[in-house]
Amino acid sequence: MASISAGPEIERLIQLLAKLPGLGPRSARRAALTLLKKRDQLLDPLASAMRDAARAIKTCETCGNLDTASPCAICRDPRRDGHVLCVVEDVADLWALERAGVFRGRYHVLGGALSALDGVTPERLNVASLIERVKSGIDEVILAMNATVEGQTTAHYLMDALAGAKVTRLAHGVPVGGELDYLDEGTLNAAFKARRSL
Amino acid sequence: MASISAGPEIERLIQLLAKLPGLGPRSARRAALTLLKKRDQLLDPLASAMRDAARAIKTCETCGNLDTASPCAICRDPRRDGHVLCVVEDVADLWALERAGVFRGRYHVLGGALSALDGVTPERLNVASLIERVKSGIDEVILAMNATVEGQTTAHYLMDALAGAKVTRLAHGVPVGGELDYLDEGTLNAAFKARRSL
Repeated sequence: MASISAGPEIERLIQLLAKLPGLGPRSARRAALTLLKKRDQLLDPLASAMRDAARAIKTCETCGNLDTASPCAICRDPRRDGHVLCVVEDVADLWALERAGVFRGRYHVLGGALSALDGVTPERLNVASLIERVKSGIDEVILAMNATVEGQTTAHYLMDALAGAKVTRLAHGVPVGGELDYLDEGTLNAAFKARRSL
Repeated sequence: MASISAGPEIERLIQLLAKLPGLGPRSARRAALTLLKKRDQLLDPLASAMRDAARAIKTCETCGNLDTASPCAICRDPRRDGHVLCVVEDVADLWALERAGVFRGRYHVLGGALSALDGVTPERLNVASLIERVKSGIDEVILAMNATVEGQTTAHYLMDALAGAKVTRLAHGVPVGGELDYLDEGTLNAAFKARRSL
């Protein structure tokens, strides 16, 4: 990116903003300009919110979720079924499932997926603590990994590591609202194989 | 957006991040998670960079550019031609032209474009200061508005307001690297009308 001759402070701000997921160099420039144009309404509140969140948010020692307390609100909630564990790669996946409101058990956040390419081994994920938790009276472990190569590799690894426990995985198939014409062969294949009688 | 039950600090961070251009609710959630996962490498430096930029960056009183000093580096630079003025809607446009390195005169940032819909009148833009500047020995005013309805409305307004001065505008035509098949009729029409002999 060429220099914009507006001082090192703006350059540094743009560089850091560009490290956020979803912001490239171009949108980072626009974001920096917006911040500087709306100092009172946006820049100052955002800087404060970042400091507040950094201070307040902890990683739950039980499940790996982010919350203001550890154990997190989900691990503390007595109305949630502590005998069913849903294993996800990332906190973002936990949030997605919570938004959908489909699951009333507890979670375990791995903190990523196995990847030989990126050097992510089982030791770098929260696998040991998962195995410990499953030993202590879990009826079902639902593997909710992403349907990517890394996610599925991780799921296979966990199937072996959790041998003896009841392990399930999310169903593959046609997304609700999806059009067949736009789906890949793998999805169509999975949807066909798992077809259900009406 | 459904609550994510991870504390009001995260919710507030996400809400503010979602106000940045280029970040929707979904990417704001991902950005918030990334910030909280990389506190030392990203969150703390970004918060500091925001404070530093807010403290250091001023709006140039002459041209409306953002810089650490007023007048800005461009307005102070004696190697730049002070007799040619390029009028842009926004600082982002100034940056784009500077990156391209096509212009060695000085700028005037309007701070937006006229829009009846959004209630942007000439009084809300840096038009009065432009007219003042043009009176004081400017040979050419290049109108570099966006090729949008608002941008062209603004250009027409400025043509009238600057009557008597030499006013030019950027050429319309086929973008370099552009394929005719993907261009709109207006662009093709403009490119045809402005065709040049070889």
